[in-house]
Amino acid sequence: MGKDVEVGGEFNAKDYHDPPPAELIDAEEFTQWSFYRAIIAEFIATLLFLYITVLTVIGYKSQIDPTKNGDECGGVGILGIAWAFGGMIFILVYCTAGISGGHINPAVTFGLLLARKVSLVRAILYMVAQCLGAVCGCGLVKAFQKSYYTNYGGGANELAMGYSKGTGLGAEIIGTFVLVYTVFSATDPKRNARDSHVPVLAPLPIGFAVFMVHLATIPITGTGINPARSFGAAVIYNKEKAWDDHWIFWVGPFIGAAIAALYHQYILRAAAVKALGSFRSSSNI
Amino acid sequence: MGKDVEVGGEFNAKDYHDPPPAELIDAEEFTQWSFYRAIIAEFIATLLFLYITVLTVIGYKSQIDPTKNGDECGGVGILGIAWAFGGMIFILVYCTAGISGGHINPAVTFGLLLARKVSLVRAILYMVAQCLGAVCGCGLVKAFQKSYYTNYGGGANELAMGYSKGTGLGAEIIGTFVLVYTVFSATDPKRNARDSHVPVLAPLPIGFAVFMVHLATIPITGTGINPARSFGAAVIYNKEKAWDDHWIFWVGPFIGAAIAALYHQYILRAAAVKALGSFRSSSNI
Amino acid sequence: MGKDVEVGGEFNAKDYHDPPPAELIDAEEFTQWSFYRAIIAEFIATLLFLYITVLTVIGYKSQIDPTKNGDECGGVGILGIAWAFGGMIFILVYCTAGISGGHINPAVTFGLLLARKVSLVRAILYMVAQCLGAVCGCGLVKAFQKSYYTNYGGGANELAMGYSKGTGLGAEIIGTFVLVYTVFSATDPKRNARDSHVPVLAPLPIGFAVFMVHLATIPITGTGINPARSFGAAVIYNKEKAWDDHWIFWVGPFIGAAIAALYHQYILRAAAVKALGSFRSSSNI
Amino acid sequence: MGKDVEVGGEFNAKDYHDPPPAELIDAEEFTQWSFYRAIIAEFIATLLFLYITVLTVIGYKSQIDPTKNGDECGGVGILGIAWAFGGMIFILVYCTAGISGGHINPAVTFGLLLARKVSLVRAILYMVAQCLGAVCGCGLVKAFQKSYYTNYGGGANELAMGYSKGTGLGAEIIGTFVLVYTVFSATDPKRNARDSHVPVLAPLPIGFAVFMVHLATIPITGTGINPARSFGAAVIYNKEKAWDDHWIFWVGPFIGAAIAALYHQYILRAAAVKALGSFRSSSNI
Repeated sequence: MGKDVEVGGEFNAKDYHDPPPAELIDAEEFTQWSFYRAIIAEFIATLLFLYITVLTVIGYKSQIDPTKNGDECGGVGILGIAWAFGGMIFILVYCTAGISGGHINPAVTFGLLLARKVSLVRAILYMVAQCLGAVCGCGLVKAFQKSYYTNYGGGANELAMGYSKGTGLGAEIIGTFVLVYTVFSATDPKRNARDSHVPVLAPLPIGFAVFMVHLATIPITGTGINPARSFGAAVIYNKEKAWDDHWIFWVGPFIGAAIAALYHQYILRAAAVKALGSFRSSSNI
Repeated sequence: MGKDVEVGGEFNAKDYHDPPPAELIDAEEFTQWSFYRAIIAEFIATLLFLYITVLTVIGYKSQIDPTKNGDECGGVGILGIAWAFGGMIFILVYCTAGISGGHINPAVTFGLLLARKVSLVRAILYMVAQCLGAVCGCGLVKAFQKSYYTNYGGGANELAMGYSKGTGLGAEIIGTFVLVYTVFSATDPKRNARDSHVPVLAPLPIGFAVFMVHLATIPITGTGINPARSFGAAVIYNKEKAWDDHWIFWVGPFIGAAIAALYHQYILRAAAVKALGSFRSSSNI
Repeated sequence: MGKDVEVGGEFNAKDYHDPPPAELIDAEEFTQWSFYRAIIAEFIATLLFLYITVLTVIGYKSQIDPTKNGDECGGVGILGIAWAFGGMIFILVYCTAGISGGHINPAVTFGLLLARKVSLVRAILYMVAQCLGAVCGCGLVKAFQKSYYTNYGGGANELAMGYSKGTGLGAEIIGTFVLVYTVFSATDPKRNARDSHVPVLAPLPIGFAVFMVHLATIPITGTGINPARSFGAAVIYNKEKAWDDHWIFWVGPFIGAAIAALYHQYILRAAAVKALGSFRSSSNI
Repeated sequence: MGKDVEVGGEFNAKDYHDPPPAELIDAEEFTQWSFYRAIIAEFIATLLFLYITVLTVIGYKSQIDPTKNGDECGGVGILGIAWAFGGMIFILVYCTAGISGGHINPAVTFGLLLARKVSLVRAILYMVAQCLGAVCGCGLVKAFQKSYYTNYGGGANELAMGYSKGTGLGAEIIGTFVLVYTVFSATDPKRNARDSHVPVLAPLPIGFAVFMVHLATIPITGTGINPARSFGAAVIYNKEKAWDDHWIFWVGPFIGAAIAALYHQYILRAAAVKALGSFRSSSNI
């Protein structure tokens, strides 16, 4: 805000460079342990994400259940549930960023694929790992507390009463846009040229983006913005209503991620190279 | 606090320099894509800010509505609403700081204009973009849930019962002072000479300043401290009471921002140049 | 945690140096604008601290008052009050650290005086400025909402029913110890030699320390750990009970700060110089 | 996420190095003040951890007790309790990281011992100091408010009604895995080679990991994931039920820490050396 970041120096064209676009199929990847390690890390991270968050949801609902002598104000509240989702993304992105990129979300992977940051093969395998991890994470919660799990909705995403499918879809699109826009902003090589420590800090705003979207849209859809999260919960909960609405939680996030990728690549970065000479006047932070 | 930051070195006069004051009209700006991009970024950021925060407010009020089988303690609570406002400013300043400076608030733009950090033309166009973005953000919420939106006050800022206009104005002035003072502190070039990574961290205290002010003044005015936020909600809600009080949410924030700019420029930085030789004794952190 | 920070290099005795102890009376200070600026900054910061936090307390109590059609679950909750205190310290330390050291608390000033980080004259003038600022901050809240202010306790610190004076004093001592210990840890020059960016981050743990202590001791004393905060509220509220208990909120914090200073200087840093040769084995983080 | 961290340079094999494994018994440690200082710091930190957190739990329960004219929605809520645990770990790891490594938890010490980051003797003495500190911290709370302490469960970890021992054990294992996995991720020398400021930031995600696990498992076991915390509370509370379940809070955390150590050393770091040549393609963050 109003500060000139170039204190003590001028930028020149070498200050940052965009990595070359990822290939669709990068045969070399298959020969590397780091590739398989990344897929394992995505699996484990998504498993932990669903385990902690769905357990929080179920625990909250059991503590406010009047039939179980619950107390309206007991439990962590919806605010606590929003923290669980946002906070887990913060720590899991922090932990896995150096291993797999810390996607933990097929919509994020899809956005980065569109921006040519990951190869097609890597994207597909990440999504598979994320979905499997989500199923296993929900399965663990169900194994721990079977009756509670089914009674309290299993953490599945469903449209709340009184909202149309269009509203739910719109909420998912914009919510995912907020998340993926933050991801692109946090990981822009141009930003890193100026603020060299952003990678370290990126997980915090990304986690907060998830927290914010949950505050806003839990009353509408329960907040998906992560198809693996919705898929895992639907598979384990396996009720008709959850499956009926399920397409919303894939189509919405993928559209939102695509718009974020387009916005970042064609509006915010469009003139990155040709406008570099004019960078000075736009660098007021 | 009590620490000498000059470990291993002495400051000299070249450690930082104030950027030259921005011109009122900078013709060169118009030729640059980065200028238009900044305006687009302010528009989108303010749109997302209003969308998420007003949706949170409406969702909270619908969940505690006893006529809809609501639960007094349901929803994210007023604490959750305060988080929504503060947290969105955190992530949006983080995302747009490198593009537009991350103002997202006409009062911030006004403060930075007074301090000659942005040109007059840029300031005016930012404010227009922010107001349009706010209108569109609120419009989206209304489109999603028309009946709820009107029933639950549309997120508009109004004086609560039992408070005078003077109190409301005072609350807006001091609240905006807290925010703009934090913005100036976070973006002071002198600070950056010592703590070179402040730009990266600035969004967090700025977001917290917004969070704090909401905790304190939601019961009085609903907390404006951002004329675009108040304007967008008033336009879409469009009830008489919201318009009657509306001037408070422009006059208050602009006065608060002006005082913050004066305090920073004439008290905290006043003797910056001439006192530099004496800097050592004042640098105890 | 278990990490060797010396990656790529060895520490040697020049990596950090303790600044020389501050003199009790430093005549040179009086000739510098930065000295007076620091006192103004402490005044304004403490004013804002009390204004926001006491307003939050009063607003919360008015929103849950059943005689005013309040709702048990309305308002920001005690959690919101704890956030207000911790969050304000975070942003105010962030904003004033470079100007005055960001004490905003006579107990912190006292601890730093004992550790010879500030001169006696500076310490006394800081404390006076802090107390005046606190009085003005509370006065503003009272001016805004006189009847609420008096009805809802004025944010004054008092022993809760059922707790002895000894318990209250103990709670204040340990609470202030937690705060001042964090301040010393955050601003240790030795730490800075290794982690050169700590000054930037110090405000966050310091704010969290205040947040934590409020979570724990609001039910006992309302949480002082800051004599200026207790003094300002007592002066403006001016009821007998608040003055009867008032000594606790000076004696407790000063004892806690003194113990923290001793712990840091004589246990944690005791052998700093002589043990430097053995630093390697103790640097496992 | 999708960002190439190698901006402006290539990594080579010298960018980081693993410190040599700690010896089981390191005779040199005993000759150093820093060794004893570290043990004192662990003792004090665990004392403060239990004091603040258990006081928060007891205060919350006393404020919602209907027999004491309590209010269902009073107090800081379970969300506030979760913040107390997570926030204290944040500030205590921040404060003691440079002195002792900031374990404050026998399970963390055990995980780091398995990974050969600390010597066996140091690990044992740390665990003893942690357990003593926890006992003293709980003792302080009991001394302050004896009747409340016993009435409100003393902050002891117990299996909630309706959960089997297997579920409790599973919850402790996975919860501790989340914590120790975060600790390993935050302190990995390989990460530090790239993001040189991680040590400074590590306490925040570590604190958040504790916060998250509390959100999820307070309804099941009250959340241990720290044997010293469970031990201290059990000793001072000293009721049969707490001792009956007590083994869960040692076995669970130690298993979880061991799995995290194995996961980190054999999956995530397994091929660290041999895959270094292929590092480029895995560094998409």
